[in-house]
Amino acid sequence: MNIAGLYGPVRDDLNAVEERLRQLSLTESPSLNALLGHVLNHGGKRLRPALTLLIGKTYGTDLDLLAPMATAVELFHTATLVHDDTVDASSLRRGRPTVNNLYGGAKAVLFGDYLFAVAAELASMTGNLRVVTLFAQTLRTVSSSELTQSFRNFDLSQSRQRYYGSIASKTASLFVLAAESAAVLSEASNAIVTACREYGYNLGMAYQIVDDILDFVGAEEDLGKPVGADLLRGVVTLPVILAIERNPEDKRVARLLEMRSEEAVQDLLRLASSEAMIVESYRIAADFCAKAHAHARELPVGDARQSLLDLTTYVTARKS
Amino acid sequence: MNIAGLYGPVRDDLNAVEERLRQLSLTESPSLNALLGHVLNHGGKRLRPALTLLIGKTYGTDLDLLAPMATAVELFHTATLVHDDTVDASSLRRGRPTVNNLYGGAKAVLFGDYLFAVAAELASMTGNLRVVTLFAQTLRTVSSSELTQSFRNFDLSQSRQRYYGSIASKTASLFVLAAESAAVLSEASNAIVTACREYGYNLGMAYQIVDDILDFVGAEEDLGKPVGADLLRGVVTLPVILAIERNPEDKRVARLLEMRSEEAVQDLLRLASSEAMIVESYRIAADFCAKAHAHARELPVGDARQSLLDLTTYVTARKS
Repeated sequence: MNIAGLYGPVRDDLNAVEERLRQLSLTESPSLNALLGHVLNHGGKRLRPALTLLIGKTYGTDLDLLAPMATAVELFHTATLVHDDTVDASSLRRGRPTVNNLYGGAKAVLFGDYLFAVAAELASMTGNLRVVTLFAQTLRTVSSSELTQSFRNFDLSQSRQRYYGSIASKTASLFVLAAESAAVLSEASNAIVTACREYGYNLGMAYQIVDDILDFVGAEEDLGKPVGADLLRGVVTLPVILAIERNPEDKRVARLLEMRSEEAVQDLLRLASSEAMIVESYRIAADFCAKAHAHARELPVGDARQSLLDLTTYVTARKS
Repeated sequence: MNIAGLYGPVRDDLNAVEERLRQLSLTESPSLNALLGHVLNHGGKRLRPALTLLIGKTYGTDLDLLAPMATAVELFHTATLVHDDTVDASSLRRGRPTVNNLYGGAKAVLFGDYLFAVAAELASMTGNLRVVTLFAQTLRTVSSSELTQSFRNFDLSQSRQRYYGSIASKTASLFVLAAESAAVLSEASNAIVTACREYGYNLGMAYQIVDDILDFVGAEEDLGKPVGADLLRGVVTLPVILAIERNPEDKRVARLLEMRSEEAVQDLLRLASSEAMIVESYRIAADFCAKAHAHARELPVGDARQSLLDLTTYVTARKS
């Protein structure tokens, strides 16, 4: 399944967003323009702005209203990546050097702030107070969750529910913002706004679970980062939680909690990468996708809705 | 001149803002609450929220409308301090350990993001789109300026105009936000909104110039940080610029540009701290204060306006 094909109904609209992003990197000081060019021209999937545009398209909503919000959502996402990479001291993202790697952590912090600010400004350009409030609330949800998570690294006692709460805040919340804001800007009914929220939430949950699966079984060249990177820096995800749930008596797990040695982490990595854990993780992702699919069916029939439905399949089938 | 005395007309309102800040640190996870408690209970001056409240008071504006914005402005300011300290790897702020010092840079980055988010959420609670847009624009101004400045450290060729542009973006913009948003929320005329902008701008310029003077002549125990700290990390401020302007033939300045040695920086520190440069810097700050004073006179007569007028004197008289 090809993502470009799914974007068909909003290809021109996505190009308009791409042009807005490109224009951004022409208007600031030369040093800032270079930074913008580096993070915005990476060939990312643009999945979040596509959600906004596809949902708006099902209602024939004016692009002038949707494009600032779609651009805001992409910049918000980019800002969180820049700060996450800085916080984790990651050197690669999508196979390219990170901002903190190229420019140092100090500039990466300030640049992330700048991206959040431009995103907030674009959100306010919609002129819709409900959307602006949703934007601010999402920013709070994402950042408070990242912060709380940072106090929990290497906590192997994390339950599945806590993991769901964490990825809901970190990832699904931004999918919700992308989807719900499109429904609000389209002046859809409350029932549809709720359906779009639920679609965004469930699609985002599945997306992050697959991300976490790919951290164990993905190919390094597809991911653009080392396999097992999350676990190595102490982030406990679904395959690990399932491995611990399934092996309550396993002395290795108890030992890992105490030792945190490289060898112990490699043991857990093997356990979490086993076929049973990966299959079960994919099954859980598919459950979320099924729910997303059901909610998308509440939208008006057409090409754009079909893409939203097909995205629920794409999300679990993707390799990177 | 006592700042608490100047706040007299809005003492209860400031207490309400203080209570909102205190409540914030009771509602999150224990680790996040501890961080909030650390940065919010520092006995800071609360000058920016006081501006919002005093201007609102001259129009008898409802505190329920002003308090969220005043709180937003203080949190915005706090967020920039947390990120600035992280970027500069500063260990002390107001004589107390910084967040990055206590918790490490990674948590400080995420915590600053969280503070920006809560501030944005509070700004959106005013329900006033013009204020929300102003908030986002100010965030962009501050962050793009900080970033541009970070590429310019140890650039001794900076002109006075460039310095003014830099402190306008970094400091005065937030005073403008505090003042202008109060006028907008008070439904004041366009002429008054402009007067409040100008008041905030000029007061903010004077405030930052005095900050930069105190970096050279303040007592370490008043400042809570080492004397000359800005210059030591390469930030060129008004006394330095004046010293360079006044001594175009001085070989020391040229040498400094090449050497950047500890000894060369100490030479420049002495030159910038000389009485002539400090007196001239204070004269320039006083000019900005005089303009702020003139603009504040356009507001309705009363105790609150008197405090706004007196603040222009306080700003240059303060010792920390």
